Amino acid sequence: MEPISREPVISREECTASVRHIRDALYVLNGKWKLPLIFSLTESSKRFGELQRVLDGITPKVLVKELKELELNGFVLRKVYPTTPVTVIYEVTPYAGTLHNVLNELKEWGYKHREKIKSDMRK
Amino acid sequence: MEPISREPVISREECTASVRHIRDALYVLNGKWKLPLIFSLTESSKRFGELQRVLDGITPKVLVKELKELELNGFVLRKVYPTTPVTVIYEVTPYAGTLHNVLNELKEWGYKHREKIKSDMRK
Repeated sequence: MEPISREPVISREECTASVRHIRDALYVLNGKWKLPLIFSLTESSKRFGELQRVLDGITPKVLVKELKELELNGFVLRKVYPTTPVTVIYEVTPYAGTLHNVLNELKEWGYKHREKIKSDMRK
Repeated sequence: MEPISREPVISREECTASVRHIRDALYVLNGKWKLPLIFSLTESSKRFGELQRVLDGITPKVLVKELKELELNGFVLRKVYPTTPVTVIYEVTPYAGTLHNVLNELKEWGYKHREKIKSDMRK
């Protein structure tokens, strides 16, 4: 399999293929919560309540749904420990680690974008 | 301003800040079309019909809406040339170029993810 071309001038077929790869990625990482969730769990495993605090604004219903989808797609593990009451900890799978570069680039871009917006507002 | 820490072990404040940067990025790049659209226009400026073909499955109504939002947020320019009938070409702004790394990482991840899914299905 040939590596994906990084040349700025590419054929229509290559462009369509690259667009498809990006769409494939966004298909499984859809919505505004999955990438922040995976990032947050990459930093440290967390309980449901901790995730709610870090993802300020997410409703419990949506958090349950997003975690289930991430579990089904192999990014998150839900571990139940037999304490009284039981302790449930969410952690990332090794596969979630393949998103490291995506998450870092998004984080850096988001930071710079906010700085730009702030600087534009001061003008 | 200090650079963002890349250490795996970070404090809760740093984790929350990093999650916020990712959410800031996804806030402006929301949905399944904006990143593929920007990528497609980064490769070459395009007319509306060409964009529709590359973004297979997008409806004209949604494409109009997405392009307007990208224009408002400074990622896309709509250029009108005085031909008969007028020619409208969409192109990216230099600011859209700041998404280069994000787009490349997503593209590579999407490609590898599809390969993984295919290989999982063969098992």
